Amino acid sequence: MQKILIANRGEIALRVMRSAREMGIKTVAVYSDADRNALHVRYADEAIYIGAAPSSQSYLNGEKIIAACRQTGAEGIHPGYGFLSENAAFARLVKAAGLVLIGPSPEAMEVMGNKLSAKAAALKYNIPMVPGTEEAITDVAEAKKRAVEVGFPILIKAAAGGGGKGMRIVDSPAEFEEQMQLAVSEATSAFGDGSVFIERYVSSPRHIEIQVLGDTHGNIVHLFERDCSVQRRHQKVIEEAPSKVLTPQLREQMGKCAVDVARSVNYTGAGTVEFIMDDELNFYFLEMNTRLQVEHPVTELITGIDLVKEQIRIARGEAISFKQSDLQIRGHAIELRVYAEDPANNFLPDIGTLQTYITPRGAGVRVDDGFEQGMEIPIYYDPMIAKLIAYGENRTEAIERMLRAIDEYQITGITTTLGFGRFVMQHEAFTSGNFDTHFVKKYFTPDVLNSDNKEEAAIAAIIMEQLLSEKKANTVATQTTEVSNWVKNRSRLQ
Amino acid sequence: MQKILIANRGEIALRVMRSAREMGIKTVAVYSDADRNALHVRYADEAIYIGAAPSSQSYLNGEKIIAACRQTGAEGIHPGYGFLSENAAFARLVKAAGLVLIGPSPEAMEVMGNKLSAKAAALKYNIPMVPGTEEAITDVAEAKKRAVEVGFPILIKAAAGGGGKGMRIVDSPAEFEEQMQLAVSEATSAFGDGSVFIERYVSSPRHIEIQVLGDTHGNIVHLFERDCSVQRRHQKVIEEAPSKVLTPQLREQMGKCAVDVARSVNYTGAGTVEFIMDDELNFYFLEMNTRLQVEHPVTELITGIDLVKEQIRIARGEAISFKQSDLQIRGHAIELRVYAEDPANNFLPDIGTLQTYITPRGAGVRVDDGFEQGMEIPIYYDPMIAKLIAYGENRTEAIERMLRAIDEYQITGITTTLGFGRFVMQHEAFTSGNFDTHFVKKYFTPDVLNSDNKEEAAIAAIIMEQLLSEKKANTVATQTTEVSNWVKNRSRLQ
Repeated sequence: MQKILIANRGEIALRVMRSAREMGIKTVAVYSDADRNALHVRYADEAIYIGAAPSSQSYLNGEKIIAACRQTGAEGIHPGYGFLSENAAFARLVKAAGLVLIGPSPEAMEVMGNKLSAKAAALKYNIPMVPGTEEAITDVAEAKKRAVEVGFPILIKAAAGGGGKGMRIVDSPAEFEEQMQLAVSEATSAFGDGSVFIERYVSSPRHIEIQVLGDTHGNIVHLFERDCSVQRRHQKVIEEAPSKVLTPQLREQMGKCAVDVARSVNYTGAGTVEFIMDDELNFYFLEMNTRLQVEHPVTELITGIDLVKEQIRIARGEAISFKQSDLQIRGHAIELRVYAEDPANNFLPDIGTLQTYITPRGAGVRVDDGFEQGMEIPIYYDPMIAKLIAYGENRTEAIERMLRAIDEYQITGITTTLGFGRFVMQHEAFTSGNFDTHFVKKYFTPDVLNSDNKEEAAIAAIIMEQLLSEKKANTVATQTTEVSNWVKNRSRLQ
Repeated sequence: MQKILIANRGEIALRVMRSAREMGIKTVAVYSDADRNALHVRYADEAIYIGAAPSSQSYLNGEKIIAACRQTGAEGIHPGYGFLSENAAFARLVKAAGLVLIGPSPEAMEVMGNKLSAKAAALKYNIPMVPGTEEAITDVAEAKKRAVEVGFPILIKAAAGGGGKGMRIVDSPAEFEEQMQLAVSEATSAFGDGSVFIERYVSSPRHIEIQVLGDTHGNIVHLFERDCSVQRRHQKVIEEAPSKVLTPQLREQMGKCAVDVARSVNYTGAGTVEFIMDDELNFYFLEMNTRLQVEHPVTELITGIDLVKEQIRIARGEAISFKQSDLQIRGHAIELRVYAEDPANNFLPDIGTLQTYITPRGAGVRVDDGFEQGMEIPIYYDPMIAKLIAYGENRTEAIERMLRAIDEYQITGITTTLGFGRFVMQHEAFTSGNFDTHFVKKYFTPDVLNSDNKEEAAIAAIIMEQLLSEKKANTVATQTTEVSNWVKNRSRLQ
């Protein structure tokens, strides 16, 4: 493969292009109307316009993407995450066109794309599952009988679901019928498939996932875990590797399970096996994502492996360049997703122009982003501006570096999750490691950010007053700096 | 220590402040007239004006720096590199003021600050030395006799020297008298001390140095080597760790020698023992730098140790937090010093305003800098803009990442060493590891950069022509991008 097309946009398109460039592989970008001036278009060796801003007309249009390959001579397609990355039909289309998809087989995507078939595949390898139904249920009376056997509280989940849609927690048998009917109708309207399954509800769950790599020679390895328990709106916002709670024994056990899940579908490429873990460290298989994850950099930092390069090598037919026993965890990495969102307003997107945009630098800081100062965050897509990743010799140093990097990150014109990240890094539940996926619900209120603002504003006012009365040359400069820092911090938090 | 003052400016001031901030230590900046708007002033918790732009009136004025500590309550001083960092008199002043210098003892500075006393100290530990005189010589006839014993070509060096001043290579006895007289008079005018010594001239030398750390409990460890053989004007410009030529045995041997050199002066803090290595891998002690080096980040990347944090811990009286046996080399790191210099004009400083300044990002790239877009590079100081450091699992990946990062670095308004860095990374002598300190003299001519420009300009012209004649919407965008990339590259190279 001398040239690949990246069927994506934003930070992940740049992320893939960087590795391709380092490997001497030419890159082709595709772009919609909204992305004409995007960084990924400028970064690529070539760029092809593929349609209007709505994804269905551009980034989700497989035919146009394959046509762009033909036009440019690209031999492979990297789908990134989201969009067409887990679409088996697209994977078949790519294969039929004589091109290489940098990802797993359509068959693996298909099995893992449905929660029930994924569970069925994993069961062959005795992977622990949350107690519950193994098959889709539509009959309410039968479902209730099974729910009583499993034990309340239980969770009703759409078989084709994701992102919390078609999901219901039921505390007692009395509420069951009503909640089940709501779940089925929600799943039907969201996914066109009303089938659900029920399982025991884990009340203090941690989200632990294992990164795997498989090649076409039958080798499958795991690259340890990521803890993605800090979520908002059922979506990850802060991830880290390794997890604070895993023991070496548990890590090995979960790693083996993840490799087995991948083996159940002869997995090739990079994939992630997700588990839910209860407060007694019992873990249960949730699902497998058959693509690169947003949070893959934390794994890269603790293993030294460039996952995109491994994906490309595997797609070329090469064997994985290392053995399981070669891998070891080095240090600790934490990722904060810097979203154009307002944490004080339920994390709703806050679209606009990056009036100031200066990224943090120095030791142990990695920024994966897709923007430059002056650019606009388009309304059509996921509002992630950047991934800020901090690395340290241990978890404490990684947290300290993350805080330092958050302070250095200068963004004005758009409200972001940077201030929220600072809140999490300083929260005792996070620093102690004693947290679960309910972290945001339990601890975060907009007041937390506002009180910071008030304090800073008060200090700034006092300094300003001193500054006006004293006028000492050497302290004025200091204080102006301090005031400007506070104002900067405040604008970031608001 | 709750608060420290950083007696320096530019990237190293920021570098130190970042680690201090991560440790929860408050920072005080000092600044001259030329640095009123500098980044290190804005970054610090407090900043104190200390005088006019010329260093003698500000950054070299120890009394003012100690007064700034008194004014702010700073308990320790980090001197960075250059300025007062190896000044034993300043170190004594700091001690007398009841403050802590984050560095070695004045005695260690004094011994290692003079080449002859440094050699004398090292000789007690049987450290290999380049054959030559052990004591300063002023008598020409005696010197010539010794030169014949040592064997030509020989090198005449100022005992108090540095930066190539008072240094002469002599090929045969016939030239000796004249060259010696020139060296003595050069040394007298540059350092106020005309004493010289003579040694065998190593014709294909590599510059290999070993990072050491010593604490107040008598522990001394080494953190492996750096290869700093790519130099211009006798000064380092590209450094890497580990060296391509060292064997594990040689590394252990040189590491032991470096620890012994440090032990000869009961060294505390971070220091560097420099060696010269000939083409048969014989190594000889050159000197010891009793401070943090510019190129310390490459060591941090391959060991995971934050050297500034270790310096601060040692100054607090803590023991080094690891043992020699805990350390291992992980991957490969290369640093390029991004200077405001014109490689096509003998690397002379090119001062001006950073009209565009966008740093590279993504995996394996670290930038340590002291500037932001719109800032001016002051004429008064070392014209280094940034240190660009690339890290990879192996040397090949580090080189590939460096090239990718150089391409991403956007600087306009000032000519830099970025294009020169690209030339080195792509040169067969560098990639093969078969190079010495004469690399620049041997291989680099301004034509190398100019020919690149011409080629790019020609391609850009062709594309522009196509663009004007075709006007196809989807290819126009691509080609505009390509043209702008070329223009960008060209402006960087010029």
